[in-house]
Amino acid sequence: MTSTTPRRRPTGRRVGDSGTRAAILEAAQDLFAERGYDGASIRAIATDAGVDPALIRHFFTDKDTLFSASIAEYSTIPERIAQTLTGDPATLGRRITAQYLRLWEDDETQPVLFSLARSATTSEHAAGLLAQLMVGRLQQDNAAPIPAARLRRITLAGAHLLGVALGRHVLKVPPLALASIDQLVDEIAPIIQGYLAAP
Amino acid sequence: MTSTTPRRRPTGRRVGDSGTRAAILEAAQDLFAERGYDGASIRAIATDAGVDPALIRHFFTDKDTLFSASIAEYSTIPERIAQTLTGDPATLGRRITAQYLRLWEDDETQPVLFSLARSATTSEHAAGLLAQLMVGRLQQDNAAPIPAARLRRITLAGAHLLGVALGRHVLKVPPLALASIDQLVDEIAPIIQGYLAAP
Repeated sequence: MTSTTPRRRPTGRRVGDSGTRAAILEAAQDLFAERGYDGASIRAIATDAGVDPALIRHFFTDKDTLFSASIAEYSTIPERIAQTLTGDPATLGRRITAQYLRLWEDDETQPVLFSLARSATTSEHAAGLLAQLMVGRLQQDNAAPIPAARLRRITLAGAHLLGVALGRHVLKVPPLALASIDQLVDEIAPIIQGYLAAP
Repeated sequence: MTSTTPRRRPTGRRVGDSGTRAAILEAAQDLFAERGYDGASIRAIATDAGVDPALIRHFFTDKDTLFSASIAEYSTIPERIAQTLTGDPATLGRRITAQYLRLWEDDETQPVLFSLARSATTSEHAAGLLAQLMVGRLQQDNAAPIPAARLRRITLAGAHLLGVALGRHVLKVPPLALASIDQLVDEIAPIIQGYLAAP
């Protein structure tokens, strides 16, 4: 964790600026996951990435921008959720629910989700950033503005999935922690489908 | 916050041991809400309550016990949720949803709920304690053991409500933060009702 060379990652993009930038994002993602937004300092991230703290400011200006970037750019979560949107509309709820629950158990995406959960509940600023990312993303993916009632129902679907993931992986409440993904999808998908289906 | 006498509270139970105990619980609740489980030290709670740290150990043994006690004994949340269980079974979902959302906006109960949310996502130990309190409570209120599938559906209802409350009050996602309690109850209550209705 305190090596002085950037850690390797199988992306094949470890040359010059883009390699340094990727090393910083990787270290940021790990430390935000481990310590939350407030607990992960620029200095600690720099040490972990094997770079000078000034380089982090060169690439990302400040911690907020680094936090946003580590989620928005580095993570595959947005695109993996987006993949589930195409297909039979009647099974959209099942696809999203299964994918979301799988992301919480995937070695690559789990640290990011833990990072978001930890940072958002301990730092108002991080919570605001996360909310912006969520809503900004929704607006961007749709040309016409989404009516308020529909936006609320989409957000309620997200809130339900978030609550289940926190209960299962953070609180580790036995009925959720011990269930299989299939059992959970069977129960939850009809609810998510109902929220997402246009009224 | 650093006065040397216990702060007053309109309970009328501020005599001798029970008064000191209540002062410690009140300070603990405030500091757990503000700093989370890991951030609130026994020493800081003692300073805030105007007592010697040794007294906290006398009453509560350790921080875990103090944390559980500050939630289980001091808070009115369990009894206020329990109150909604009696009445027309057809409107149980509405009563629980409205009460739960109101608890997150009540001056007395909001700090406890923020404390739980912050502590549970930053400390595995606190998360385990919270899960124990939840499940322990469920089992206690029912003489016969609850079948696993039903327990899972009850927990899913709780997870949904938790996700909505976090989205509204912690992430402050606009579609949830700007909605009225009535709007949210109209959308969510049918889902909670479905989860809680025996299959």
